[in-house]
Amino acid sequence: MAKNAKRQMALVGFMQAGNATVYAGSWRHPATEHGFLTAGYYEKLARTLEQGCFDLMFFDDRLAMPGIYGGSVGEAVRTGARPVKLDLSVVLGICAAVTERIGLGATYSTTYYTPFHVARTFATLDHISGGRAAWNVVTSVNDSEAQNYGLKEAIPHDVRYDRADEFLEATTGLWDTWEDDALVLDRETPLFADPDKVHELDYEGAWFSVRGPLTVPRCPQGRPVLLQAGSSGRGREFAARWAELIFTGDPGIEVARSHYKDQKEKLGERGRDPESVRMLPMAYTVVGESKAHAEEREQLFLNDLVDPMASLTLLSELMNYDFSGLSLSAPITDELIESVSGIRGLVQNIKTGFVIAATHSPGAYEDVVRMVVPELQKRGLFRDHYTGSTLREHLGLERPAAAARG
Amino acid sequence: MAKNAKRQMALVGFMQAGNATVYAGSWRHPATEHGFLTAGYYEKLARTLEQGCFDLMFFDDRLAMPGIYGGSVGEAVRTGARPVKLDLSVVLGICAAVTERIGLGATYSTTYYTPFHVARTFATLDHISGGRAAWNVVTSVNDSEAQNYGLKEAIPHDVRYDRADEFLEATTGLWDTWEDDALVLDRETPLFADPDKVHELDYEGAWFSVRGPLTVPRCPQGRPVLLQAGSSGRGREFAARWAELIFTGDPGIEVARSHYKDQKEKLGERGRDPESVRMLPMAYTVVGESKAHAEEREQLFLNDLVDPMASLTLLSELMNYDFSGLSLSAPITDELIESVSGIRGLVQNIKTGFVIAATHSPGAYEDVVRMVVPELQKRGLFRDHYTGSTLREHLGLERPAAAARG
Repeated sequence: MAKNAKRQMALVGFMQAGNATVYAGSWRHPATEHGFLTAGYYEKLARTLEQGCFDLMFFDDRLAMPGIYGGSVGEAVRTGARPVKLDLSVVLGICAAVTERIGLGATYSTTYYTPFHVARTFATLDHISGGRAAWNVVTSVNDSEAQNYGLKEAIPHDVRYDRADEFLEATTGLWDTWEDDALVLDRETPLFADPDKVHELDYEGAWFSVRGPLTVPRCPQGRPVLLQAGSSGRGREFAARWAELIFTGDPGIEVARSHYKDQKEKLGERGRDPESVRMLPMAYTVVGESKAHAEEREQLFLNDLVDPMASLTLLSELMNYDFSGLSLSAPITDELIESVSGIRGLVQNIKTGFVIAATHSPGAYEDVVRMVVPELQKRGLFRDHYTGSTLREHLGLERPAAAARG
Repeated sequence: MAKNAKRQMALVGFMQAGNATVYAGSWRHPATEHGFLTAGYYEKLARTLEQGCFDLMFFDDRLAMPGIYGGSVGEAVRTGARPVKLDLSVVLGICAAVTERIGLGATYSTTYYTPFHVARTFATLDHISGGRAAWNVVTSVNDSEAQNYGLKEAIPHDVRYDRADEFLEATTGLWDTWEDDALVLDRETPLFADPDKVHELDYEGAWFSVRGPLTVPRCPQGRPVLLQAGSSGRGREFAARWAELIFTGDPGIEVARSHYKDQKEKLGERGRDPESVRMLPMAYTVVGESKAHAEEREQLFLNDLVDPMASLTLLSELMNYDFSGLSLSAPITDELIESVSGIRGLVQNIKTGFVIAATHSPGAYEDVVRMVVPELQKRGLFRDHYTGSTLREHLGLERPAAAARG
């Protein structure tokens, strides 16, 4: 089954628990439903993607409104450039309650959370969902995030990754504190769990120390699936050590090919099987009943809904640099558009899988499930039903063994 | 409606997201279902209590296994003295998805979380549930918790409360960063939200600094309902400043009366209406079809399922003191039993409401809903349907106005 899953495409929904999709302008789309503060909205998204047999839906996150541009959140609020970001654990609880198979992922920062907290949240999600949890591991880039968490500015790039390495050592350690067969549940003896199979961790690092054990037994998948999207040199080293699924958004096919080759080499250098880790490029889809219909939809989106101020606001966040001193000149938005086109080209060339973002929500996902998925199924590129029950089974990933004990 | 709700009893389910109820031995009860790692278990609990028109179900939490007794988690693991504690935001997401009216509360620590995180989690829960969120505010007592969060030992008592005061100043401030009518959602202009009605907080304290705004618009209840159970002098001062609902577990009616009087006076000194804050005592229920049946059940529980080692393990946590040097002598367990009887006596005397704990789960809650609630309804002491839709409406609490802006 794992082998079969490997030969097929993987489909991942890249979601935002807020007012807009990855496209800041999507809230203005006439077909977007403004239910982003209600349970029903997320329930509908989850059910739609599960109906389309998606491997995974995962939610992006940031721990602040965009507030770099002009030193204020004003433009983000005005243009709707993702000023709303809900707590993902609550949203994924909602999604877990109304689905049975689709993987459920969330972005959690290694910069402003703690290992015990994150390990507990994802182990809980993995149990509650019957083995469907995934964690998109990130470090937090922005000064605006730092300022919501008691710091004046963001932690320097390489230090963030050194912290993240420790964070992962601690969380993976916590997930292994209960052996798989530790729970006994013998009411008579009584013996709830075998004390010889539940271990303290006693992790001591430069940034984190954690005693353990985790208060959650070892989870159905052993560990939640680890996602990563770092593209810097240090980010790729980090991914080579930890990631089980890598998302990419390279601007152009040559960059993408070089990234792919470099990342696979780094995996090999780490002693990991490069084939075991898939790299998934971002695809953004504009779907219509006909080519003309799709092109009309694309024009509506690009011409009318992409607000240059919203783009600049988000670019300022991405670069952690205030672009408000520059005029609204063409080069910047052209570069943005160019990078978007680059990704579209990339989609034609890498067949291992796609991360799907949406121009409007939930309609764009419904379109993909209604029009694109059946076509992929007809061509034998994508499953027409789930064959496994856990996310690892969907993706053909091994269940990790618990750490060996001396 | 609010006045009517005030005249009636409030019923609150005191839950554990783990293997045992408040009674460590409950997992051994023959009728306890061991589904504590599944969504279905929490869905059933939530539906049962909502069927019984409970005001609120709220989950207790601790951020470590009991690990004080004997310096090890071994006894907690062996006896099942609450070694399992799931992440509550995920569990409450599950509960929110399958209910429509019952209040949903969680214990979150002001000692090891951050204000931005907690404010976002509860604002999200309040939106997603349509105005049903409650936060049980605690400070973390145990060294074992400290050691899971990077410290050697717990923070001293009064310092914890000073931090907690700041924590509440910051979280309540964050909940008010969006004015009630800030969201505009005008696709044409475009104007997502009015920048003049979304404010930075710029909170600066000794322990916390937070820029804001929160990434969640002002929530249906204005702010989530704040619960508190502190009984020390400093804890009562804290409750007088912040709490909207106070839980008590006093050992005996005289202590309870004095606590009640003192807490109400402290509320008055703070300039708050003492009548506006209810104090709810803990009730341990043993329910049967007849008195004899109930007594038989109680004996089963007290004689056979209460494990003195489990009690000592939990007592060590509660006092943050290792009792393993003492022999398993009668006085300690007698005191425990005495305190239980004391609470039971207390229940006869305070008619404002009850916090219901369970000998087995979910059966004990089903018994209360099947046998006790109808009797209370018949006597006109408790609602037979929800008249409001938010938790504040159930409890007769005012919706707080947002902070005034100069």
